[in-house]
Order: sequence, then C-alpha cells, then structure tokens
Amino acid sequence: MRLGGLNRIELVTLALAGLLTLATAILHFAGGRDVAAFITATIALAAIAWVVSFATEAVGERFGPAVTGVLQSTLGNLPELFIVLFALSAGEVVVAQTSILGSIFANALLVLGLTIVAGAYRSRDGVMRFHARLANDTATLLMLAVFIIVLLGLSDTVGDRASRHQTTISAVGAVLLLSVYFVWLWGYLRGAETPGEGRAVQHAPRVGFPIAVGLLAASGVAAAFVSDWFVHALGPAVDRLGISRAFTGLVIVAIAGNAVEHVAAIVLAWKGKNDLAISVVKNSVSQIAVFLFPVLVLASLFFATPLTFVMGPVFIGALVLTAISVWQVTTDGEAAAFEGWSLIALYTILAVLVWYE
Amino acid sequence: MRLGGLNRIELVTLALAGLLTLATAILHFAGGRDVAAFITATIALAAIAWVVSFATEAVGERFGPAVTGVLQSTLGNLPELFIVLFALSAGEVVVAQTSILGSIFANALLVLGLTIVAGAYRSRDGVMRFHARLANDTATLLMLAVFIIVLLGLSDTVGDRASRHQTTISAVGAVLLLSVYFVWLWGYLRGAETPGEGRAVQHAPRVGFPIAVGLLAASGVAAAFVSDWFVHALGPAVDRLGISRAFTGLVIVAIAGNAVEHVAAIVLAWKGKNDLAISVVKNSVSQIAVFLFPVLVLASLFFATPLTFVMGPVFIGALVLTAISVWQVTTDGEAAAFEGWSLIALYTILAVLVWYE
Amino acid sequence: MRLGGLNRIELVTLALAGLLTLATAILHFAGGRDVAAFITATIALAAIAWVVSFATEAVGERFGPAVTGVLQSTLGNLPELFIVLFALSAGEVVVAQTSILGSIFANALLVLGLTIVAGAYRSRDGVMRFHARLANDTATLLMLAVFIIVLLGLSDTVGDRASRHQTTISAVGAVLLLSVYFVWLWGYLRGAETPGEGRAVQHAPRVGFPIAVGLLAASGVAAAFVSDWFVHALGPAVDRLGISRAFTGLVIVAIAGNAVEHVAAIVLAWKGKNDLAISVVKNSVSQIAVFLFPVLVLASLFFATPLTFVMGPVFIGALVLTAISVWQVTTDGEAAAFEGWSLIALYTILAVLVWYE
Repeated sequence: MRLGGLNRIELVTLALAGLLTLATAILHFAGGRDVAAFITATIALAAIAWVVSFATEAVGERFGPAVTGVLQSTLGNLPELFIVLFALSAGEVVVAQTSILGSIFANALLVLGLTIVAGAYRSRDGVMRFHARLANDTATLLMLAVFIIVLLGLSDTVGDRASRHQTTISAVGAVLLLSVYFVWLWGYLRGAETPGEGRAVQHAPRVGFPIAVGLLAASGVAAAFVSDWFVHALGPAVDRLGISRAFTGLVIVAIAGNAVEHVAAIVLAWKGKNDLAISVVKNSVSQIAVFLFPVLVLASLFFATPLTFVMGPVFIGALVLTAISVWQVTTDGEAAAFEGWSLIALYTILAVLVWYE
Repeated sequence: MRLGGLNRIELVTLALAGLLTLATAILHFAGGRDVAAFITATIALAAIAWVVSFATEAVGERFGPAVTGVLQSTLGNLPELFIVLFALSAGEVVVAQTSILGSIFANALLVLGLTIVAGAYRSRDGVMRFHARLANDTATLLMLAVFIIVLLGLSDTVGDRASRHQTTISAVGAVLLLSVYFVWLWGYLRGAETPGEGRAVQHAPRVGFPIAVGLLAASGVAAAFVSDWFVHALGPAVDRLGISRAFTGLVIVAIAGNAVEHVAAIVLAWKGKNDLAISVVKNSVSQIAVFLFPVLVLASLFFATPLTFVMGPVFIGALVLTAISVWQVTTDGEAAAFEGWSLIALYTILAVLVWYE
Repeated sequence: MRLGGLNRIELVTLALAGLLTLATAILHFAGGRDVAAFITATIALAAIAWVVSFATEAVGERFGPAVTGVLQSTLGNLPELFIVLFALSAGEVVVAQTSILGSIFANALLVLGLTIVAGAYRSRDGVMRFHARLANDTATLLMLAVFIIVLLGLSDTVGDRASRHQTTISAVGAVLLLSVYFVWLWGYLRGAETPGEGRAVQHAPRVGFPIAVGLLAASGVAAAFVSDWFVHALGPAVDRLGISRAFTGLVIVAIAGNAVEHVAAIVLAWKGKNDLAISVVKNSVSQIAVFLFPVLVLASLFFATPLTFVMGPVFIGALVLTAISVWQVTTDGEAAAFEGWSLIALYTILAVLVWYE
C-alpha cells in the first residue's frame, strides 16, 4: 500500500498522529481527565515528531545529506520549541527550563550511551568507530553554553551586583551563542564531507515535494496545538501522579519530545551506520544547547516570566560533567560498550536524584 | 636460601610481616602505647600488602597477565578494605572516607607523578611513552565516580529535598558504578592484549599453587587483625601527635595502605616497563573509585553510620580536577618529566591544605 | 631612515613611547586631570611594551629562537609586573588580582580566538594547523594553577580552618608552581625543536647588542614610572567614568598591558606562521599563570596587603572553564574559524558579566 510515495509504516504513523491529535483535542476540551490527556498528548507528540522526521527527509532529498541532517534536527525540535513556549506563557518556568536541559541530558547521555552500546555490540572487536570531528565540534559548542550557564549560576549564588542583570546578560549571551552556532553551521554545510554512508543514497525523490511541504505544515500546526494541550494537562496530571515538576521536564518531556531522534540513532548504529548515528545525536545536542536554548531565551523577553540561563547548582554541575564526559568518551573517535553503559549510568544517577527533588 | 620457591627477599618480607603483626598485637593488648602501636601497624600493613602482592603473582602464573594484574590490584586492596570497614564500625567516618579518597589521590597524583618522572628520566628523549587505551578507560571510570559525588555534594550544599535521601541515592549509584566496572572488566579481560613486556614472562611456576594460596589466606587474616588494631590505635595516636583526622586518612593511611603498588609502579617505570607501570597505577585508581568505594557504600548499609558519596566541597573540587588533570596528562600516551612533577605538585598542594584543616 | 640599526617603524614607536611617557609624567605631576592621565598612561604602556618587544628580539638574536621566545614573553610582562606591584602597594588588591586574571583571559580567549580566526581564514580548507605539543603543555600548566585556586576558593567559601592559613598555603603553592614552571622551561629550552619558520631567520644581528641592552634598560625604567602613574590615575579615573574596578583590571589593563603580544600573534597567524603565533599566545598564558602570578604572590609577602590565590567564585569558574575550553580547542593541533569565534564569545560573555559587577 503506497499513497503519494509514502510507504506503509509512514502512512500508519501519519494516521496514528492524526488520531492521537484528535484524541488529545477531545480529552482537552472535555476536561477533567488530566492524566489521560497528558499521556495521550505525550504519545501524540512522539508520533508528530516522526511525521516531521520523514517529511523533512523527503524535502531534504532536493538538497545534500548535510543540509537534510541540519533541517531534520531543526524541524525535529519543533514540538520541543512549542512546549517550552507554551510552558513559559503558562508560567511553568521549571518545566520550560528542565525540558530544555532534559533534552540535552537525554540526547547526550542516554541516547548516545544506547547508540554506543548498539554500535559496539555490532562491531567485530567490541569498539564503535566514527569520525571524531563532529564529536569534538559538539564538545566545543556545548562548552560554550556551559560557560555562560556556570558564570551566571555562580554570580547568582554569590548574589553579586551582576545577578540583578541576569536577563540582560542572558540576552547578550544568547546572541553570542547564536552567532557561534551560525559560524559553525556555515563551515559545516560548506565543507561538509558528510559521512560516507549518507552520500550513497542517490535515488529519485520518493515523496513529491508539495506533499512533503504540506505534511510539514500540517505537522507544525498539529505540534503547536498538541503542545498547548500537553502543557495544560501537565500541571494537574503530575500533581495527581505525585511526580515532581523537575522530573517531568527532565525525563518525561525530554524523552517524549526527542523520541524520534532517539530511535533513529540507535537503529542506525545497529545497522553499522556509525557516522550517521553519531551525527543525529550530536547535531541534536549542539542544536538544543546553542540554537534552541538561546532562541527561547530571546523569545521569552516578550513574556511575563523571562527564561534565563540561570539554573540550580545540581543542574549546572550535571551539565558541566556531561559536557566533559561526552567529550572524553567520543574525542578519539572510538567507544567501547562500557563507555556507552557509563553514559547511561550517568543519566540514571541524574534521573534518580531528580526523582527525589 | 630458598624455601617453597620463595626467594631471599620474599622470605625476609614474610618474616618481617609476621614479626610486625606480632609486635602490633602485643602493643595493642598491652595498651597505652598508642603512637608506637599506630606506627608499627602502619609498617605491618605495608609488609602484609607486599606478601599479598607476590602471593597473588604466584597464583596468577596459572592465568594470563591480564587476570593476574586485576587479581593483584583486587587483593592488594584488602588491607584498605578492612581499614575502612573497621573505621566505619568504630564510627570514624572521616577516616573511612578520607582514606578511600586518599588512595585515589595518592595513586593518581603522587605515584603516577613519580612513575612519569622515573619513566621520562630513563627514556632517551625525556618523554615516557605508553598505551593510551587504559589511561583513557581510567579517565572514563573516574569521571563516572566524580559525577555522582559532585551531584550529591551540590544537592547537599543546597540542602534540597534530594539531600534527605543521600543514603538511598548513594546505594543506587553504587550499584550503577559496579555494573559499569564489571562491563569494563569483562571487555578488558576478554580483549586484553596486555602490554608486550608482560607476556614475555613464560616460565614454570616458581612458587607452588598450594603455598601461594596458603600465603594469601594467612595474609588476609593478618590484614584483618592488623587493620582492626590500626584503627583502634589511630584515634588516640593522631590526637597525641596533633595531626588532623583528614590528614591521617588522606596522606598517612593512603600511602601506607598502597605502599606496594607505589613502589612496584615506580620500579617498573625505572626498568622501562612503561605499560606495566601505568597499568598498575591506573588499575588501582579505577578499582578504588568504581569497585572498592561502591562496595564499601553498600556494605556500610549494615552499619550504624552509613558511608555515602557525600563529601566536603574541597575534596569534591580536588577529585574533579584530579580526574581532569590525570586524563589531560596521559590521554596522548606521552608524558614529559614536568607533567609528572606537576602531578606531584598537585598532591603536595592538597596535602598542605589538608594539613591545616 | 635608519639609526643604530632600527627601522622607521621602530624609531617612530621609540619616539612615541618617549613622548607618551613624558606626557603621562606631566599629567601626573600637574594633577587633577585623572581621566586624561589614565588614557595617556594606558597608551604609553602599550608603546613601551612594543619597544621592549623589539629590543628583546635584538638581544635574542645572539641566542636561539626558543630562548628569544621565552625572553620576549618574560620581559614583555614587565609592565604587567610593575602595575601589579604598584597596585598592591597602593592597596588596590582588586585591580592587582583582576589584571593578572585579565591577562590570562585576554590571551587565552580573546587573542587566541582572534589568532585562530585569522589563521583559519588564511588556510586553504578553513582549518588552522599547528604543533599540539605546546598547546597541551600550556593546558597542563594552566590546570596546575587552576588546582590551587579552586581548592583555596572552596576552602574559603566553606570557611574551614585551612581558610585562616591562606597566605601560607598560597606561598607554598607559589613555590611549587614555580618549580614546575622551571622543570618545564628546562625541558622546553633543552629539547626545543622550535617551529620551522623561526629557525629560518639566520641573518646578521641588525641592532647592535649594546643598543638593544640600553633600550631594554630604558624601557624597564620607563615602564616602572608609567606603571606607578597609571595606578595613581586609575582609581579616580574609573570612579569618574563609572567603570568598576573589576572591569578595569580584567579588560582595560589586561588588553593594554599585553597589546604587543596580542598584535604580534594575530599578524603572525595572518602570515601563515601558525606555530610561532600559537607559541607567542601560549607562552604568554603559561608564563602569567605559573610564573608571574606565583612570583607576585611571593613578592606580596613584603607588602601590607598580601596577594593570595583566593578569588571570587565567578572568576574561579571562568578560569576552570577557560583552561578546559582552550585545551579542548587546541589539543588536536587543529582549529576551525568557529572555534576561534567561540573563544572570543567566551571572553565577551565574561566582559559583559564583569561590566555589571
């Protein structure tokens, strides 16, 4: 069964995304059933993210694989973007900030860890190999975001004069982060010799360009609505379930909002496409840290409660060590199974700690 | 003079260990002479550790050099294990925790530093060279231990809700650390192409297997008793000498309890067996951080005063920077004399600071 | 026009340095015009530093390029040394400490960043390449300074017993830092295969040895006087301009005091002499961190207000992350434009934060 060039799985996902969006809408407007609405919205977001993912791939077939990769992670972060915006407008600053952080942790620790375990398991000598360049670029970009977060955090802890100008300093920092991201992106797209496996895919466009663009537009609108309903259901739902705001943002929203990248990266590593797998995870991490986060900081200037780079000491510590650990594991272009498992353990420790917050 | 395959030095060490154990026993039961008992026990522990070391080597001749290496560092940490257990049961939590930390610092900074100075001095161009793989593995494992220690420390400083669940979080973390250690160990022993120098040793077992096992058993019992007496003498002795608890654990116990690995590594580097030397130090460091420490955390659940991963900010800072510095110095498989001297300077700074605590 | 072997630009700089010194003197003794005196002194210091620079080069033509490099950065730090000494004797501890820190930040972030941007722009594939050895040595040395600064800072924050012995611990640490610096220097000068470009310069000495030594002596005296007047004018001037002490030390003094190294490094990178460019920046950073800083700590023991390694949490955090970021960017001997731009962004974030302090 094929329709407009979409294959069976894609059509099923599309139908599912539509049904789930509808179900979330009904539960939202019916009211009262918060937990059900929250769970339905979570799954709907993952399904929409999947649609965005293959629609972008189709659009991207017009361009090279490097452009597609970047386009995919940018549009794949759409639900993320909407959730944080609606959370901010609903005054849920903790959920907004922890879901950004959670996306970084989930990608950089949990998913990278699983990807390495899969890649190492399938390699002959138990060591996954990949180009180190992108891994090191991501480390540099992540360290840049860490720098402003640490400095603002320390200034906030000390309570010095600069701490009264956190919004201004965050805004200036956001502009600087974005400028570095674009300089990097320009160099990456220009010089991109993308990993060998990616270039091999040179077939005729499967899905028509107009259909792909239509799907993207529809997904965008659906993502916006579902995110709104998700944020509405979230507050009462987690209160009833007895889950803390921090755990919700850091674990549940982070995993649901990035579900597609997560599955994609692990499957690619399992198939031996190590460079592509690492590229999906790493691009996602750097994009959230030095593109999505600063964009949201700037956007929040128009809200009542601004989003800044200031966060709690535990999150700052976790972020610094995540940046260092991820760099340490991937800098040599080699990773053994225990290194992947070590990253998963780091994520689990963090999740356990946040559970008790 | 040879007896049961033991050479002269080994027989002398054995006799010395027996005499010192006896002397510690007499001083312990006579009572009153705390400083003398403390000093005798310290030297006895070093002698017993030496006996454990050559007995393990003899046992290990049945297996490959990789197994022997791991067996050696595991059994070589027996005295350490007993000291911490007895210290915990005596309520000396500061001594227990600082002696674990001290073992990490003494091995990772002081002994690695001396080993590099020796290795660099004996190389033609002033640079010690070794396989970087084990060095980087140790960095990953150490960073894992650092992660939970930093997060718990920050949570404790802030005094948030998670800080009331430190024992639970430490226990979960300990299980995760142990799981990563065993995944690493499994890969290390399976794939172990151990350093070239080690494999050359292919002679007939010198010491009989039963004698070696008997020595191990005897050393284990002696180590247990002497550790008990050591901990008893420690409190009054350091009070009389005016030395702080932290300095005792961090410097005196740490150096005495690891004396053998210390001498062995430096001698190996001096002989040009760089890979073996680095392997002794590095295995010791990772084992204490992600095997001995978590095992003791779990064991302490049965004591009145539990051992957790929570420690003072100064120690946390020192641990983070030690992990980074050691990784930085050894990651390229090369180390010049000044890098070794730099590690020694780090240890000295730490010891001076702790002296004034 | 040539005089005593000096070329036109050098003669002009010399005349300018003389005139500016004179102008500063007049403004100082006339009194009242603090802002004018401060600005004139700032420019005079940069001009004197330039004279020191080419005089050292002339003296250095008697020795190899490695010796010249070290001599140049040592004497190039003369104005820096005098400023801090006079600031200390005037009780301006914040200016003293922040101008040392500022020199590290300005060199390691701003100038290294600009150098990388220049080098990457002029390379064929947008990546600047250089020997990684010196970069990694600097990382080790910087990490050593960071270690004592972090430990003392944490001890100070906690306010434990060791915090009452900060001066003693700083002094012991200073001696240890200096010992590592000299061990490194000895190995560096002995084994120095300096970068290829440097060795090619094998011409007859251009400026006579006596003239060069005379210039050095005169510059030293001028630097001492101007630094004194600079520190005198600084307090009232920044008060009138409404600039904070921290910003003055960290940005203005740091850039003025290192102006020459700054311009030299960027020009060298632009000409494609990457190794020499990196060597100028890196030598400057390590020298300030593990030579100038400890020397000033020891010298300050003779002053009323001693200089220690204790500083505010924001500066400590910035220093730790600077050491890690710089290592991360240069450890592989390659740097793309975005990495340079990232370092510049780090410096800007820091400057903005300090502006609001």
